[in-house]
Amino acid sequence: MGGDEAPRVVVQGALAAVAEDPHLHVILVGRREQVEPLLDGTPREALSLVDASDVVGEEARPAMRVRERPDASVLRTAQLVAEGHADAAVSVGNTGAVLASAVLALGLLPGVHRPVVAGEFPSAPGTLFGDLGANSDASARHLLEFARLAAMWHSVRYGGADPSVVLLSNGREPGKGTPRTREAARLLDLEALNFQGYCEPADVVSGRYDVVITDGYLGNLVLKTVEAVSARYAEMLFGIAGQTEEDTARLQRLGHETHRLSDFTRGPAVTVLGVNGPVLPGHGRAQADDIARLINRAKTAVVNDDCGQLRRAWSATHGGAVENRREG
Amino acid sequence: MGGDEAPRVVVQGALAAVAEDPHLHVILVGRREQVEPLLDGTPREALSLVDASDVVGEEARPAMRVRERPDASVLRTAQLVAEGHADAAVSVGNTGAVLASAVLALGLLPGVHRPVVAGEFPSAPGTLFGDLGANSDASARHLLEFARLAAMWHSVRYGGADPSVVLLSNGREPGKGTPRTREAARLLDLEALNFQGYCEPADVVSGRYDVVITDGYLGNLVLKTVEAVSARYAEMLFGIAGQTEEDTARLQRLGHETHRLSDFTRGPAVTVLGVNGPVLPGHGRAQADDIARLINRAKTAVVNDDCGQLRRAWSATHGGAVENRREG
Repeated sequence: MGGDEAPRVVVQGALAAVAEDPHLHVILVGRREQVEPLLDGTPREALSLVDASDVVGEEARPAMRVRERPDASVLRTAQLVAEGHADAAVSVGNTGAVLASAVLALGLLPGVHRPVVAGEFPSAPGTLFGDLGANSDASARHLLEFARLAAMWHSVRYGGADPSVVLLSNGREPGKGTPRTREAARLLDLEALNFQGYCEPADVVSGRYDVVITDGYLGNLVLKTVEAVSARYAEMLFGIAGQTEEDTARLQRLGHETHRLSDFTRGPAVTVLGVNGPVLPGHGRAQADDIARLINRAKTAVVNDDCGQLRRAWSATHGGAVENRREG
Repeated sequence: MGGDEAPRVVVQGALAAVAEDPHLHVILVGRREQVEPLLDGTPREALSLVDASDVVGEEARPAMRVRERPDASVLRTAQLVAEGHADAAVSVGNTGAVLASAVLALGLLPGVHRPVVAGEFPSAPGTLFGDLGANSDASARHLLEFARLAAMWHSVRYGGADPSVVLLSNGREPGKGTPRTREAARLLDLEALNFQGYCEPADVVSGRYDVVITDGYLGNLVLKTVEAVSARYAEMLFGIAGQTEEDTARLQRLGHETHRLSDFTRGPAVTVLGVNGPVLPGHGRAQADDIARLINRAKTAVVNDDCGQLRRAWSATHGGAVENRREG
């Protein structure tokens, strides 16, 4: 039920994904009366529908209150993973609600207080950037936790032993940043991490470091700025008439390339780190092919057991069977 | 003495500016032993030199402490304006030090507590964006003050009666933002301003609104992100070999255009609002031609009496002869 054109494009994306893979089964979660008419004629071994009458919209600020909305489709989706009915959850709805649902239904890894959304720009594959929007009021301790999770995730995915970690700031000098980033830098210096200090926005898109950490408010704004500037340049390229048809076609391709470089949904990994199960949030503007790609990425994550690997590595390091299920 | 290649490029820029205008006189402020050798043979009616032995570097965090550094070139520069020896000040040094010097030497407009740095992206002329880096810890009340100053400046420059004002956030819905932006939005709603709520980063580069307000930390990071993404795409365009020479030349021009669109130093106005005199900060990476352009923009600001117009309009509205000179 999430995203700008729900449920139509979500269903179209799911149909596209199952059409390509006979072993894939997608469970759609949402209002039966809205979703069922869109499924006409689809074989039920490929798709099923779980009815959920409540929808958490984008306008919902206290999205964290999913606990009080047991019929919300976003919460039911995460519960299907927790109950073993599904292997992974994807959603292009309200990101805050996706996270709150993931925490509530799946629980957090031992010692983790907040989940973090991390991803990679296609222009900088291998550079994990987060938080992308989960925690707009992250403290220095939260930033430290994000760094631990993201560094371990980077090692799990790429096999590198000691990923370089930097903290996003308005300058590289240690005196830059805010009191909060300076405190986070102090904590990161004490940590058994390959922490290399502050970085600037250029490093988010350059691929120079393995992990770039920031709070969710700034991360989301940087992400949206990259998208906005890319869209602007793509528009500029689309608007130029070449001297030949071939020429124009090439400028159009450059325009598409420009868009692509900023598009997180095309990057190799946007995921929620810190929860006990694979949850993949997508962009609210996602079209059907984006939804199909999101489903395929979830499938890959399940096949590779990315989430299980992170959980085992995390538990081995941060120990304990303590499981803190908490909201928000 | 400011900027990455000081004092060489600063002197070169000043020489270029005076070479083009026989009525222009530039006072260089800095270490005599470093600057004098660069002036060999320049007529002294065009250029003069004021010796200042101290230089505030980029690494200086408590740049606000210029009060304790009376020989700092950045402070002496602002004092020359305050004392009537110069009509405007330009600097590509530490922005924090430029601002602190401006406040200390020139004083603030009545009722203003902090100066704000505002500018326009060449891709969105007419959209004033600030703060670009002056106040990394701006409160909701400071954001309100920035909005008042920027809206009035917009009216002074463009003559429009009721400029539209928006507040940068991670989404347009009123529930988005942080507690601080929500409080600022509440205060702005009560104000006699054409306040239109939150905007997203796309609106900073689209030209959709007249004034976009944010705090200096976020503003600086958005500015740097725009620069970084633009540099990345320019690099992509420069890297493509065309099928003909003409073709390659055009891709190069597109690359330059991409750079240009993100370049605040080429925009029509980056200025410090809220202080009693024209102070124009520039980019630390400025080259000689950027410095010459900065000097020309200062000249235009003086000729148009931009600063005097703002002061008179501000004093008429926010009244009082109260002048609060305070540091930081």
